[in-house]
Amino acid sequence: MLVVVTYDVDTTDIAGRRRLRRVAKVCAKFGQRVQNSVFECDVSPSDYLLLKHDLFEIMDNQADSLRFYNLGSKYSNKIEHKGIQHHLPTDSVMML
Amino acid sequence: MLVVVTYDVDTTDIAGRRRLRRVAKVCAKFGQRVQNSVFECDVSPSDYLLLKHDLFEIMDNQADSLRFYNLGSKYSNKIEHKGIQHHLPTDSVMML
Repeated sequence: MLVVVTYDVDTTDIAGRRRLRRVAKVCAKFGQRVQNSVFECDVSPSDYLLLKHDLFEIMDNQADSLRFYNLGSKYSNKIEHKGIQHHLPTDSVMML
Repeated sequence: MLVVVTYDVDTTDIAGRRRLRRVAKVCAKFGQRVQNSVFECDVSPSDYLLLKHDLFEIMDNQADSLRFYNLGSKYSNKIEHKGIQHHLPTDSVMML
């Protein structure tokens, strides 16, 4: 299933900037970055639990925000893109 | 249907910072901001076309990135949130 992970990390201090790097690193283990704070992770249910566990260990609940959007396993017609791409376009994304 | 709009706008110049404000303003017309560059827009198919039209008019295709994730009309079990919230939690989001 494809899970879109979006996050806002409070980077006003050094600890926050460190959390930001670590959040991105965890997401990169499970998927690909498509925008600065957006990753697309094609994960199994168990990997999804692992992904969330690792991220929750890092984040500061009082300062950061994490959102997960589960697009399921059939997602090719659910994603559209316009503009520059940070990554190699997956064949399942409709280019506008 | 709920469409998640995520964007990266190149703000290295004044024009980019202006585009960023205008992109957010358009998204706010159609939905609610949930993170800095993430909006959730509950729109009809025709409003979705309008939303995209207005955004494409603003963005710079060579510098900015827009992604649209269509979660369909039944999305309550597709969204999870952890951490701080910028907005009033809609009842359809699972708080972790």
